[in-house]
Amino acid sequence: MNTSNTLSLQAGFADWQTQTLAPTLRKAPERVARFVTASSTPVERLYLPIESSGHERYLEQLGFPGEYPFTRGVQPTMYRGRLWTMRQYAGFGSADETNARFRYLLSQGSTGLSVAFDLPTQIGYDCDAPQAAGEVGRVGVSISSLADMERLFDGIPLDRVSTSMTINATAPILLAMYVAVAEQQNVSSTQINGTIQNDILKEYIARGTYRFPPQASLRLTRDLFAWCSRETPKWNSISISGYHIREAGSTAAQEIGFTLADAVCYIESALNAGLSVDDFAPRLAFFFAAHTDVLEEVAKFRAARRLYARLMRERFGAQDPRSCMLRFHTQTGGVTLTAQQPDNNIVRVTLQALAAVLGGTQSLHTNSKDEALALPSEEAVTVALRTQQIIAHESGVANTIDPLAGSYFIEQLTDRLEADARRYIDKIDELGGMVAAIEQGYPQAEIEQAAYDFQRSIDTGARQIVGVNCFASQEPTRLELFQLDEQSARRPIERLAEVRERRDALRVNRTLDAIRAAAQSDENLMPVILDAVRAYATIGEICASLESVLGVHQESCAEVLA
Amino acid sequence: MNTSNTLSLQAGFADWQTQTLAPTLRKAPERVARFVTASSTPVERLYLPIESSGHERYLEQLGFPGEYPFTRGVQPTMYRGRLWTMRQYAGFGSADETNARFRYLLSQGSTGLSVAFDLPTQIGYDCDAPQAAGEVGRVGVSISSLADMERLFDGIPLDRVSTSMTINATAPILLAMYVAVAEQQNVSSTQINGTIQNDILKEYIARGTYRFPPQASLRLTRDLFAWCSRETPKWNSISISGYHIREAGSTAAQEIGFTLADAVCYIESALNAGLSVDDFAPRLAFFFAAHTDVLEEVAKFRAARRLYARLMRERFGAQDPRSCMLRFHTQTGGVTLTAQQPDNNIVRVTLQALAAVLGGTQSLHTNSKDEALALPSEEAVTVALRTQQIIAHESGVANTIDPLAGSYFIEQLTDRLEADARRYIDKIDELGGMVAAIEQGYPQAEIEQAAYDFQRSIDTGARQIVGVNCFASQEPTRLELFQLDEQSARRPIERLAEVRERRDALRVNRTLDAIRAAAQSDENLMPVILDAVRAYATIGEICASLESVLGVHQESCAEVLA
Repeated sequence: MNTSNTLSLQAGFADWQTQTLAPTLRKAPERVARFVTASSTPVERLYLPIESSGHERYLEQLGFPGEYPFTRGVQPTMYRGRLWTMRQYAGFGSADETNARFRYLLSQGSTGLSVAFDLPTQIGYDCDAPQAAGEVGRVGVSISSLADMERLFDGIPLDRVSTSMTINATAPILLAMYVAVAEQQNVSSTQINGTIQNDILKEYIARGTYRFPPQASLRLTRDLFAWCSRETPKWNSISISGYHIREAGSTAAQEIGFTLADAVCYIESALNAGLSVDDFAPRLAFFFAAHTDVLEEVAKFRAARRLYARLMRERFGAQDPRSCMLRFHTQTGGVTLTAQQPDNNIVRVTLQALAAVLGGTQSLHTNSKDEALALPSEEAVTVALRTQQIIAHESGVANTIDPLAGSYFIEQLTDRLEADARRYIDKIDELGGMVAAIEQGYPQAEIEQAAYDFQRSIDTGARQIVGVNCFASQEPTRLELFQLDEQSARRPIERLAEVRERRDALRVNRTLDAIRAAAQSDENLMPVILDAVRAYATIGEICASLESVLGVHQESCAEVLA
Repeated sequence: MNTSNTLSLQAGFADWQTQTLAPTLRKAPERVARFVTASSTPVERLYLPIESSGHERYLEQLGFPGEYPFTRGVQPTMYRGRLWTMRQYAGFGSADETNARFRYLLSQGSTGLSVAFDLPTQIGYDCDAPQAAGEVGRVGVSISSLADMERLFDGIPLDRVSTSMTINATAPILLAMYVAVAEQQNVSSTQINGTIQNDILKEYIARGTYRFPPQASLRLTRDLFAWCSRETPKWNSISISGYHIREAGSTAAQEIGFTLADAVCYIESALNAGLSVDDFAPRLAFFFAAHTDVLEEVAKFRAARRLYARLMRERFGAQDPRSCMLRFHTQTGGVTLTAQQPDNNIVRVTLQALAAVLGGTQSLHTNSKDEALALPSEEAVTVALRTQQIIAHESGVANTIDPLAGSYFIEQLTDRLEADARRYIDKIDELGGMVAAIEQGYPQAEIEQAAYDFQRSIDTGARQIVGVNCFASQEPTRLELFQLDEQSARRPIERLAEVRERRDALRVNRTLDAIRAAAQSDENLMPVILDAVRAYATIGEICASLESVLGVHQESCAEVLA
């Protein structure tokens, strides 16, 4: 018995080395030839159980990195091959201001871009629309037409940067603008690299920036999937987001459970439209939060990877291993930051970022210490980026794969979170799937209850938050806050007026007519949206055209913009 | 075979519960009745292997917390019972200024005190001595007589605070002063609680604040051990320090190896003087550094605990389990901090403090972000303390014992560091013990080589330090630095003149004569030093009296004070 166990661990390891590791190393060597600790002790690529028996559980539940069920990570060499993408979410004011911040971040060592859009852009109103008043450029950059997008990426070569765009209801329009800017740079759509959030379900569950009714939104999502599977092989056509679910107050298990239930819904919707799973699933990506309970978060990321792999193989019959890989971006938890004692947020973000890396994230945004108070200052975003760089280069945790694997606590918590999350998925299946569950208010109510319990535990003092309900300080906070330029809101409006002046109005109208026609048919909407964007049709005009056919979600967007 | 393994793990766990855990819980319950994650998932006290076989290694190498070999920690409930002591090292200027800083730290939630003394006090010169010029109050508080010590602890009840004093060559004198202040507060020596560093060997190895020759120093150490074993049952009579060895550039394995070799030397010296191991070993404490390579540091702390337990049992035949417990204070690594981009130090200190807690430290000092530039400001020490509080209350890592146990990487690194450290101890045994090894320059040369290799790896870029050899910033550092009051050096000198004026000069001379007489005999020096301190004899006078008999170490102290 012992002998056969040992053999099978050894055999698995040998197979992994020849079948999975070797091809990866042939493509690209690891970052350095020899990894060592701060004390120069050699660090191996992968540590395995050293007991001579009892390996069934290891082989079943953990396996090898880059192999099903991906508990230990999606790449065979993980951060020894390449560090995660350091991708700071940024955007405010006009395209010019955000472009300057992007260039600053890249100069400081950011390795990817992440665009924050303002609420009007997210919901599809032009910056000069009455619905946009007071919100232009406030929580992100204002983009009304291709002209803004050109300025946003001015001087940034789109074949050499990876870009994430946090946009959902209007995702097809923003992706079309990105592709059109790339065309102007002579970069084809097959070369662009990045992610579009395009996750509308969590907007109904937790965040609120929807515009069209759920079924219409799902059609836009599907159209984007199908178009991307042909046109943008290096682009993630969705980033299914647990981040906002967690920000709304969910538990870690709900974050995984509801996010993967959203994934099930998108996948079923695409399958129902005739797509085949291995055509689009390799381009599905995920987005999670990292909170301060370090080890619970590590377990969460590992549980999410394993559960998704099992769902994809068992439920959807995925054959391509890439269809079973849960690749994810992580953002440190905005709601965990406190306005009190802002430097404490550097401590929290460090713990959270460490959790994301120990959990095997593919890319990471670290929040700035001042985000509970204002838009982040340049000084604050620099410290946030340095936090990632110190973890990458000084902490040693990037030198071996899945370093906490085997920890009795981590493994048992991973099992528990996987089981808890699976129960949420089962429950949503019982309710008839995620759209039906949302209509019945199920995930919303579960999250609300968790948020209430959490807040109550703070109010009663059962849970201590430093600087909030314990160790408060009388000292006023001294911090130079970032202030939006008063011109920030006016500039996009002026530019939009110029665009309307300059463009070929007849061509615009023709492309908008084509959108309405396509919306009435089964035709994929992406090509007609791309034509409209190229003609400098605005986001407001395109959305109005779509809305005239697809309708608007009854819960008014006004509450988001209010 | 499998069955018997399972039974023995279960049997070990059952024994631990009845014999070790239950008596602890009877004395004091845990901090809360139910520990949960940030998501309210229940967290158990202790996680064990879940495989059904292969437990020999677990039982041999890890065992249970509060039980030999103490790999999983020295207390049966660890931080569920009581959090580590948050003890910020502080001291500058006069006793009054340091007293104000102590009161501030206590008001902000520090749970212990830690005194930094200036160099004249450490080497035994009065503040008005020519050797003290330019150094009074500079790196710590200036203490020349009991009068200063009274002001240092003014308003701080010594029966309710735990105090650590970083003092070595003059440890017996400062401990005597502390006991005398306690007497004035009607607190008996049996009630005082704390630690005196009293580790002179590492001064010869790595730090340089010695005064007497090694053998004379060892006698003072022994006298202090013997006196404490009778008079101060709650006081740690030594804190054998790897911190300064690491600060001098050693590796993690050298830090453990040389520190435990120092311990061997102290223990043998006490045994040779006729003490019995279980009389003094339970009051030996340790002091280590925590550097940024998080998981190596966790493994280091665990390896140190196990190696020490084995040494005590196997080599010294200790019977009392408390003699085998390596209890330690940790300080985050001063040398790891950078003058460039000081906020980055908050990130480093967070990682280091987390390592100390995951490694099971008994008390912790977190460095301030500005320590590479100046004495820490009040604002900076507050953030450093908040770092500990966030780890204690928000990170979740204090909710289960030794949470990383079982991690394949951590366990294999723990084994490796234990073996590497043991080799250093064997080598020092071969050289004839630590005093002989120091005389031959062995540990000094090993540390120097490690420091050289580390620096070279930075110079070549093989090792990246953020803000130093990568991600440098053009921005000048904006930070309000703490400035010592210009009067700080003058005040202690004025007060010392008053003390000399006021005291009974005949009584002082009598007590100094008694010190010389005792030094010439085998008599324990502590009682006569205590008498001299009570008479307000100064540290300079007492050291001169000792020096007239014990001699001075040939390597001049002038180089330290220069």
